[in-house]
Amino acid sequence: MDYFEKSLLLHKKFHGKLCTKEKVSLENSEDLSTYYSPWVAAPCLEIQKDEKKAYDYTRKWNNIAIISDWSAVLWLWNIWWLAGLPVMEGKAILFKKFWNIDAVPIVLSTQDPDEVIHIIEGIAPSFWWINLEDISAPNCFYIEKKLKEKLNIPVFHDDQHGTAIVVLAWIINALKLKWEELSNQKIIISWAWAAAIAIWHLLRKAWAKNIIFSDSKWLLSTSREDLNPYKQEVLKYNINNISWTIHDGLKDSDIFIWVSKWNILNSDDIKTMNKNPIIFALANPTPEISPEEAKKWWAYIIATWRSDYPNQVNNVLAFPWIFRGALDWEIKQITDEHKLAAAYALANSVKEPEIEKILPTAFEKEVVENIATAVKNIA
Amino acid sequence: MDYFEKSLLLHKKFHGKLCTKEKVSLENSEDLSTYYSPWVAAPCLEIQKDEKKAYDYTRKWNNIAIISDWSAVLWLWNIWWLAGLPVMEGKAILFKKFWNIDAVPIVLSTQDPDEVIHIIEGIAPSFWWINLEDISAPNCFYIEKKLKEKLNIPVFHDDQHGTAIVVLAWIINALKLKWEELSNQKIIISWAWAAAIAIWHLLRKAWAKNIIFSDSKWLLSTSREDLNPYKQEVLKYNINNISWTIHDGLKDSDIFIWVSKWNILNSDDIKTMNKNPIIFALANPTPEISPEEAKKWWAYIIATWRSDYPNQVNNVLAFPWIFRGALDWEIKQITDEHKLAAAYALANSVKEPEIEKILPTAFEKEVVENIATAVKNIA
Repeated sequence: MDYFEKSLLLHKKFHGKLCTKEKVSLENSEDLSTYYSPWVAAPCLEIQKDEKKAYDYTRKWNNIAIISDWSAVLWLWNIWWLAGLPVMEGKAILFKKFWNIDAVPIVLSTQDPDEVIHIIEGIAPSFWWINLEDISAPNCFYIEKKLKEKLNIPVFHDDQHGTAIVVLAWIINALKLKWEELSNQKIIISWAWAAAIAIWHLLRKAWAKNIIFSDSKWLLSTSREDLNPYKQEVLKYNINNISWTIHDGLKDSDIFIWVSKWNILNSDDIKTMNKNPIIFALANPTPEISPEEAKKWWAYIIATWRSDYPNQVNNVLAFPWIFRGALDWEIKQITDEHKLAAAYALANSVKEPEIEKILPTAFEKEVVENIATAVKNIA
Repeated sequence: MDYFEKSLLLHKKFHGKLCTKEKVSLENSEDLSTYYSPWVAAPCLEIQKDEKKAYDYTRKWNNIAIISDWSAVLWLWNIWWLAGLPVMEGKAILFKKFWNIDAVPIVLSTQDPDEVIHIIEGIAPSFWWINLEDISAPNCFYIEKKLKEKLNIPVFHDDQHGTAIVVLAWIINALKLKWEELSNQKIIISWAWAAAIAIWHLLRKAWAKNIIFSDSKWLLSTSREDLNPYKQEVLKYNINNISWTIHDGLKDSDIFIWVSKWNILNSDDIKTMNKNPIIFALANPTPEISPEEAKKWWAYIIATWRSDYPNQVNNVLAFPWIFRGALDWEIKQITDEHKLAAAYALANSVKEPEIEKILPTAFEKEVVENIATAVKNIA
């Protein structure tokens, strides 16, 4: 039985992955009167007097929404609303498992960005946090920005920021092994979608200086007239005048971060990079180049999304802990400082990084405390 | 410590009443790969091919939304979005307890009926059922009707239909004790809001013929020009030409159903009713007239919302079972026939009704099977 078949079988067996559960006893009519009509009126009236009491008397304090317009689901991209639901449920059980956050998976029936914003505004009061999920660029940037302006609760697009935090943590530790500084590295990021732009942004905040950026066509350059405002923003800080191909960009680079569905990497490209490069081959489910193949060509460290290779890049290392810290410390929005703190805390949670164990696995629980505490300390 | 204080204490102690729970094991990276990236893609792709598969592979089959615009919360009425949340959470734990239905409580940030419809449309794909809750009349009629037209999932306003089912079941059994027929009873329903109109509608379907209706001002009559379309609809079937007061209407009546926040009933009124009347004093939390007082004046049977008196009228007797039956049998919408079947099944679940035990309590589980089966048999 292959992985696909096994996944189908188990999804069907458990009939979905998430359920609800009552936290209180409901055994007699006194319980009913206390938690429902008539005496549920007591917390209602208290909250009416002071809205902050909602965090004491309801689940809001620990309740987030995972909301998707299903436009960028895994490598399947724009599938369809219901087809995106298994992913949102999967994310919700990760939040519960790591670490005890109640999450409600919601797929929307629209992809119009203003509609998405409008609907999320409509349901926001029930939640402490809106986690945007699997929304494609550039809509994801617009939606997140507008919602942050409109809502008084945190908004976080994990595909961007969670990925950026984990990738930065990964690079920090990989460079420890190479005795190198981030500011000296030539980095090339391929395909300018949501996560890639967020990675670029965070690397820059961590003092990376030499970053080349490619979209699905060419390197971003000032000579191109087809760039959306988000790509233009990237160019402001990474001036490049020549519309070379990604293959040209790879020459003499040290770190290659590939977050795409495009299959354009080959071993010849790797040979043109500087010696012992660090490679993120993050295409899903099949990496652009296999770790075995990359190693043949002197790649020093290679990371993928895959759990069956060493060095899995997995957002679950970041997002549950960041949320836990932010929920417990009532942080209003996650800033760049929180993200940097989380990335360094994640990196530092490994005392001695090894080539095949750069970061901890999601199941090493001590990581939690590090990141949650780091986020808190910024607050 | 009074009921209010106890409720506050317990709501705070448990920090809300509802949480989520994962149904699958998440102990190692193979579990992560199966239920999240990459192999969660398997159910996504199956659902993309056949949308019905969402009921096999996700929680949608058992997942309902409890959605409120908080315009008619208990007797507090139009409070405020967050202040309504404890009630929605209370309802959600009832669904889970009776019987194992996952419910997501959502309070909206708007009360505009078209906006309410629009937002619910936006999030509907995630759910198998929309339960509207605590929405005031006449908006509730409009919202429910429009949503039924627009959505391909069931929509149910429990405050209307759940209450109507329980009240009808109650009357059926009370009349067994009095050896009377429903069609011979003179019934007066006070205050024409959501539940009252739904009760009127269902009583009529059960062959009640003589129903007088009052709103907060006067009996509904053809001479009045201030009636909304829903009240005009009532008048079509219950022709009444004279704008008397509710006190006039009470004279010689057999059943008085009071579902209001108005406090206008007194013992003198009861004395004008026919002998041994049946009285629903459903004001919450304090009945319009206490059972003790009503009995002094020859009331035969009196029902309240209160759990500390006999004969508590409680929707929890109806809605979880109806939903369970409808979910299990994939019923598209709850029709009048389903409601009648549910009411008769609820009534018949008591072999020998007694004056102080007309219906079972919510904790007598055998009721479940009756109602769920009755709903199924209609389908």
